[in-house]
Amino acid sequence: MAKKSEKDVVGKATEVTVKATEKADKGKAAGEKYVFLFGGEGTEGDASMKNSLGGKGANLAEMSRLGLPVPAGFTITTECCNAYFALGGQFPEGLKKQVMTALAEVERLMGRKYGDAENPLLVSCRSGARQSMPGMMDTVLNIGLSTTTIPGLIAKTNNERFVWDSYRRLIMMYADVVMEKAEGIEPYDGKGIRRILDEMLDQYKYIKDCKADTDLTAEDLKTLAHAFKRRIKEVLGTEFPDDPMQQLWGGIGAVFKSWVGKKAVSYRRIEGIPENWGTAVNVQTMVFGNMGDSSATGVAFTRNPATGQNLFFGEWLLNAQGEDVVAGIRTPSPLNNATKTDQNRDMKSMEDMMPATYKELDAIRLRLEKHYRDMQDIEFTVEEGKLYMLQCRTGKRGGKAAVTMALDMLDDGLINETDAVLRVNPNQVMEFLLPIIEPKLEAKSQWLLKGLPAGPGSACGEIVFTSADVVRATRMGKKVILVREETNPEDVEGMRDAVGVLTARGGMTSHAALVARGWGKSCIVGASEMQVDAPNKTLKVGDKTLREGALITMNGSAGTVYEGALRLVEPTAGEDYAEFLRFMSIVDKLRTMGVRANADTAVDARKARSFGAEGIGLFRMEHMFYGEGSAKPLFLLRKMILCITVADRVAVLKELFPYMKNDIKGTMEAMDEFPVTIRLLDPPLHEFLPHSQLGRLELSKALGIAEDEVRKRVDALQENNPMMGHRGVRLSVTYPEMTEYQARAIFESAAELIRDGKKVIPEIMVPITCDVRELRHTKEIVERVYAEVVRRFDLKKLKYKLGTMIEIPRAALLADQMAADAEFFSFGTNDLTQLTFGFSRDDIGSFMSAYLDQRILAADPFQTIDQSGVGALIEMATLKGRAVRPDLKVGICGEQGGDPASVEFCYKTGLTYVSCSAFRVPVARVAAAQAAIKAAKQ
Amino acid sequence: MAKKSEKDVVGKATEVTVKATEKADKGKAAGEKYVFLFGGEGTEGDASMKNSLGGKGANLAEMSRLGLPVPAGFTITTECCNAYFALGGQFPEGLKKQVMTALAEVERLMGRKYGDAENPLLVSCRSGARQSMPGMMDTVLNIGLSTTTIPGLIAKTNNERFVWDSYRRLIMMYADVVMEKAEGIEPYDGKGIRRILDEMLDQYKYIKDCKADTDLTAEDLKTLAHAFKRRIKEVLGTEFPDDPMQQLWGGIGAVFKSWVGKKAVSYRRIEGIPENWGTAVNVQTMVFGNMGDSSATGVAFTRNPATGQNLFFGEWLLNAQGEDVVAGIRTPSPLNNATKTDQNRDMKSMEDMMPATYKELDAIRLRLEKHYRDMQDIEFTVEEGKLYMLQCRTGKRGGKAAVTMALDMLDDGLINETDAVLRVNPNQVMEFLLPIIEPKLEAKSQWLLKGLPAGPGSACGEIVFTSADVVRATRMGKKVILVREETNPEDVEGMRDAVGVLTARGGMTSHAALVARGWGKSCIVGASEMQVDAPNKTLKVGDKTLREGALITMNGSAGTVYEGALRLVEPTAGEDYAEFLRFMSIVDKLRTMGVRANADTAVDARKARSFGAEGIGLFRMEHMFYGEGSAKPLFLLRKMILCITVADRVAVLKELFPYMKNDIKGTMEAMDEFPVTIRLLDPPLHEFLPHSQLGRLELSKALGIAEDEVRKRVDALQENNPMMGHRGVRLSVTYPEMTEYQARAIFESAAELIRDGKKVIPEIMVPITCDVRELRHTKEIVERVYAEVVRRFDLKKLKYKLGTMIEIPRAALLADQMAADAEFFSFGTNDLTQLTFGFSRDDIGSFMSAYLDQRILAADPFQTIDQSGVGALIEMATLKGRAVRPDLKVGICGEQGGDPASVEFCYKTGLTYVSCSAFRVPVARVAAAQAAIKAAKQ
Repeated sequence: MAKKSEKDVVGKATEVTVKATEKADKGKAAGEKYVFLFGGEGTEGDASMKNSLGGKGANLAEMSRLGLPVPAGFTITTECCNAYFALGGQFPEGLKKQVMTALAEVERLMGRKYGDAENPLLVSCRSGARQSMPGMMDTVLNIGLSTTTIPGLIAKTNNERFVWDSYRRLIMMYADVVMEKAEGIEPYDGKGIRRILDEMLDQYKYIKDCKADTDLTAEDLKTLAHAFKRRIKEVLGTEFPDDPMQQLWGGIGAVFKSWVGKKAVSYRRIEGIPENWGTAVNVQTMVFGNMGDSSATGVAFTRNPATGQNLFFGEWLLNAQGEDVVAGIRTPSPLNNATKTDQNRDMKSMEDMMPATYKELDAIRLRLEKHYRDMQDIEFTVEEGKLYMLQCRTGKRGGKAAVTMALDMLDDGLINETDAVLRVNPNQVMEFLLPIIEPKLEAKSQWLLKGLPAGPGSACGEIVFTSADVVRATRMGKKVILVREETNPEDVEGMRDAVGVLTARGGMTSHAALVARGWGKSCIVGASEMQVDAPNKTLKVGDKTLREGALITMNGSAGTVYEGALRLVEPTAGEDYAEFLRFMSIVDKLRTMGVRANADTAVDARKARSFGAEGIGLFRMEHMFYGEGSAKPLFLLRKMILCITVADRVAVLKELFPYMKNDIKGTMEAMDEFPVTIRLLDPPLHEFLPHSQLGRLELSKALGIAEDEVRKRVDALQENNPMMGHRGVRLSVTYPEMTEYQARAIFESAAELIRDGKKVIPEIMVPITCDVRELRHTKEIVERVYAEVVRRFDLKKLKYKLGTMIEIPRAALLADQMAADAEFFSFGTNDLTQLTFGFSRDDIGSFMSAYLDQRILAADPFQTIDQSGVGALIEMATLKGRAVRPDLKVGICGEQGGDPASVEFCYKTGLTYVSCSAFRVPVARVAAAQAAIKAAKQ
Repeated sequence: MAKKSEKDVVGKATEVTVKATEKADKGKAAGEKYVFLFGGEGTEGDASMKNSLGGKGANLAEMSRLGLPVPAGFTITTECCNAYFALGGQFPEGLKKQVMTALAEVERLMGRKYGDAENPLLVSCRSGARQSMPGMMDTVLNIGLSTTTIPGLIAKTNNERFVWDSYRRLIMMYADVVMEKAEGIEPYDGKGIRRILDEMLDQYKYIKDCKADTDLTAEDLKTLAHAFKRRIKEVLGTEFPDDPMQQLWGGIGAVFKSWVGKKAVSYRRIEGIPENWGTAVNVQTMVFGNMGDSSATGVAFTRNPATGQNLFFGEWLLNAQGEDVVAGIRTPSPLNNATKTDQNRDMKSMEDMMPATYKELDAIRLRLEKHYRDMQDIEFTVEEGKLYMLQCRTGKRGGKAAVTMALDMLDDGLINETDAVLRVNPNQVMEFLLPIIEPKLEAKSQWLLKGLPAGPGSACGEIVFTSADVVRATRMGKKVILVREETNPEDVEGMRDAVGVLTARGGMTSHAALVARGWGKSCIVGASEMQVDAPNKTLKVGDKTLREGALITMNGSAGTVYEGALRLVEPTAGEDYAEFLRFMSIVDKLRTMGVRANADTAVDARKARSFGAEGIGLFRMEHMFYGEGSAKPLFLLRKMILCITVADRVAVLKELFPYMKNDIKGTMEAMDEFPVTIRLLDPPLHEFLPHSQLGRLELSKALGIAEDEVRKRVDALQENNPMMGHRGVRLSVTYPEMTEYQARAIFESAAELIRDGKKVIPEIMVPITCDVRELRHTKEIVERVYAEVVRRFDLKKLKYKLGTMIEIPRAALLADQMAADAEFFSFGTNDLTQLTFGFSRDDIGSFMSAYLDQRILAADPFQTIDQSGVGALIEMATLKGRAVRPDLKVGICGEQGGDPASVEFCYKTGLTYVSCSAFRVPVARVAAAQAAIKAAKQ
């Protein structure tokens, strides 16, 4: 019934092999220590060992060292994970012995015995990577329950129902994670064993007329457990193991294998986590929050992760296991009264229900913050009144919250300015610039729905109901909001592409909230009035039904959802913005590399300056042919393209001249003092030509040329590969008059501004040069026009620089020659990436996802600079250029200029500045400061 | 009337400036010697000083040293030329003094005095570059004639008519070269001063009813001279100089400036002569071959330059100046009787007419050959019975002649094997492979015209009448033959592009013959029965008229022209071919680098092997989709491209499989023992799709898919820049099954051949890789299929290699990583050049000529490897690759693999082999041998 495809698992395992082999060999030779104990006086690890123990394991050890109540257990290292893959899915030598030794110590600490008939120890197997990957890898709980240990546990707990419930949970989880997924078994008809068992459970409940799982009796659960085991044998062909040791090793192996599971791989790709980090496995004594009303489980943050407010913030469930909170199946209650919201005002807080335990937890919270000097995300369980800490890690937070916390902790003397800057993910500062709903409009509007404000900023888009639909719609250029009952790790791709995420269930610590917050994505969870009917692609609120494609607007900072499209505007300068400005001033104190913006108009330039741009790194002359007011210049451009004689072209250039000056002058005026780099025309000629008969007819009439002649000339301009065609400086070589008029527009603009008392520094940039002689050719024209304008305006003060884009590999290879005539370089990483890879950015759609999925490329090189290839050219060109001209200004103006990893690379390479879209200028500023801090630390 | 455009001359001068400045400065500081005397005992230069004195000057000095009768003179160096341009067109300091000193010595040697009224010395000013550039630069003769010196010369020669004729020649030449061209004056209405004066001469002859120039009396010529001077003042605005010194300096400057004249620049571009070589100026005593019937002038080769036959071979004219022979205005007579042809059987030889002088000349001929150990091209003048040597240089020769001479001289012990190999321009050996007219057909056909066999090989094409028409027609893909009354240097571009050249006038030493022979171009000159009417674009032979576009076939080795298209076939293995084979065996003895061919079929592979290919460097799998028999596979390919599921694609691949095997097996069988490099499919998908409605309809029917669906899928496959799109290894990543079937076809073919007792070495080559993981991905598939085939055929002997194309810059940059998995590299210099420059080869037409004309690029990088850019990547990749894998085989399979300069570069870079089209394999073999010889010499 189920097809076994080993290829997937083995294939992936082999990939990791290559890198891991070396380590594994080393480990073997040295008799490497793979197992580290925690939970008592013999704790072997600590927080510094994250790379080996994973975040969870390291922190469990650290908490143990702090004397906090951690159920004993041990961590198997990430090195062991790599060794496991290096051996093609075999445990390395020596591991068994180390595990058995550690297990014996855990038994001693907990006073229970694994597999023992009288006093059995149960354990969980959890993953734990160096960096948190919430929900992306697998967990098995209740390991150790078997026909041997069940009676003993019943006797000990005196709770038969609890034991049989735990057993059926083990079976369901184990069959899914260990017996199916980890074995690479592909579900028949797409129906996995988990769903098969779930359906059996539902059917049984229906027959027994039970509403909830809790209505099932011990006997029912026992019956179900036996039925589950039979069904597993039928579907998967193997027996559910009754041997506790077999269960344990199955669990360990399955957690390792979940490192290369589909979800995990997809998440790592998005987050840029290396494949060879591996995961650790934490084997820990089970404690139970579901042993009755003196038991509970919860998840908390030492401060509010959404706002940054310094209040203990969390959610809990009485008589429940931890997964119930995280999975968002039941909406949990607030931890304390201070953090209650409109939605949960009526729910019971732990502060009220278990005041003593809450106090103990609150004390631990303060202790942890002081110790870690950062906001912590903790998991706890109360087993019959006793508090256990199950996890502690640095908590994810939204951008605004990150800034607030950093500044608060700075003010409290907990951290210094350097730490404060490092606390904020550069991308997160964009939250301060996120659009909001036009305030007056929002005040007048009636909301349709309210939920928890899980991700900041507002969003407006069409609703869709599956992750796949998001991806599809986004490719078609639509803005969509993903609406789900609850999100799960399978939804990450869709969550990334959607402009907003809206769920009916789940709390502030649910999967959707966690992921969305990490990405600064507008997100509302727990909007429980909404009924989501995913199969029929509709959502209902009361008697209102919205179908797929309906427009909604959501305010992720308030948790409100509106029907239809409300106008979004830029954030007004409120309290948040002041905090942002304070943070950025600290950032700029620690930053050394310049940050400029790419902008083509006075409006954009002013915006860029308000975001802290220290100049324009890319002003594109061809902007005048796009968007508003472009009709006339575009017509003139078309006319010019079809000109045959120089005289005709010059006549058109004279008409175009005022349009050229308009944006240049406005932009230079807006930037004053700051330099403005003006790239000479690089229009994709063919794009500007009319390809329809009507368009040709219009042009034919306007130009007084026969339509047939227009068609001929248009055809003659067609190119097979326009990206590598007649563009940029090539146009300057063939039509020098075009360069002449551009230079005149630049110098006249500058001269007029200087005459009006402004300071302007135009930097003229020549695009797509591949040889220094192209640059010289252009330079001669520019110098001639410069002399003419200086004479005409009698202005000795007019200064300028002439430089070149480095976006053709040859220009990078011959950068020493280029630098002889260029006063600055600017790397055009878009084109440089296209040519270095031979990838046409317009055409990678057909294969890029395969390249990323199969991990042939670690990242899309158009988003993050490919450091080994494109980066090698950038480094080479910078070195060669500076060897010839030590004061050469070197910048980057491709889209990667606003990508934090790329900014760090630019800093390391010694670039003078990065230039990016105005909106990403603050991101680049933070990234540049962090790069400087990191470099200074090394 | 005439517009002065200084820009041209000055602009060009400035370009040369940059490189020359350094030398000029050095010269100035050291008080550099710019002037070298020759022609007597005080001769200062010698043959080794070509770089400074130019070829002509160095050889005049050398002949002087040998005691041969050289009219005294002096050479101004090429360094002085560079200094002249560096100073913006000014003579460097010290030159005047050196010239005056040398002139005094010439006066002493010749017993005449420059500018003297009684016994005046007249001089010529001739250019002379390091490498001969026949007719490309300017010359002024008879300098020194003025109102002062004319009476003295008349008295001395007692030949008033001769003196006035010389004077009017001086005026015409000087006005053209010095007063118009060198001043950068653009002729009004395109009518230069030379033509204006020519028209005056013609009109005067008409009025006086004279047929020939010689019918004009001394008085007529005197009248004309005065009229010329008046007209020059009117047209050019300046007076013809009457001061001999002013004449001299004007002549020297004009020769320098002619270095940057349009013709010279164009010629250098084609010949790849560097700009900064400069020209020397030879100022030499005038001797006159036109002083009556005891005077003569001639041009000769020490051996026959067309056939290589060891016979003194030349042409002469009684009572004429040298330019009359070279310019092809009069058809000259044969030098001796042994070399008379059917065409000139009746003309008088010098041997008969001037037996004593001929004997003296013949002795000099033998002396020169012994001295120079190579065939010499000489110019001589007999002035009233006295023989003067005016020039001697290594003679240009056709390819067959070059081989014949090299082997003859080798057999005579004049040179060794190394010299013999260096004597032949690699491109020239192609002459042995040039097509000939199908012999039986030619025997039956009646020729239309007969002329001198000036350039070898046969050609067939449409006739056109101007150089511009050749260029235009060739761009449209036509094969054309340029038909001219006589060719002149303005015609070089057209001569290059035409498949053949046919002229009505001129001898074997005329411009057309010289240039065509240098290029191995089919050429017939002096076909005097033909009347060419260029303005009306017709030629007449008797009463037959051929219009532009008419087809003719010419046999350049026999000098015969046929009407219509005769079938051309490959050269049969005759006597010539045996000589070729002997020469090539010497070449191969001295060659170390391998030479392979690019071939896709058994037929091509056999041809390649017969031309000496030592393997196939590029077998393209996609060949099966082109040309004969491709209908079925092409249909299957289209079907596959439109498949959506893997299963559908596999079904089509199974159908394609026999076609895949067919060419692979045939090619491997043909090459036996030699390796065959098979490049995996890299089809331009979009090219193979039907774009017309009819094509879509057909495919829709054949595939059973709705036409609308076909259109949708075709549209989805459209790419903006297909060169950088979904191709090559990218297809292997997205459709691994395609690679699987190709590997199976290769291994099955190899296995079957091995089973039949053949030796085969398939080398599988992966195209357009940019990352080693693409290679690994493909390798996994190949290895799996290999194991399967080896098992199936039970064949342990089957060996293969897996390697990669290096044609994406990133692959070159990361070649060390690539070499970890690649057993060989092959540089695909076509794509590598495209991406390194960002030039789409399909689209460079719109700007490449501007790039070459403006000397922004020295050569078209698609014809000769760009050593500084693309070459840097090749060197880097080779070094990096070999560092990781020392025995890495490295080859090149782009079109430049058959270009001699590129082959030399590949040798220097340490490549294992070059691979080129079968036809160019012998060229590559010679180039590789020469590269090895040159390297050994250094």
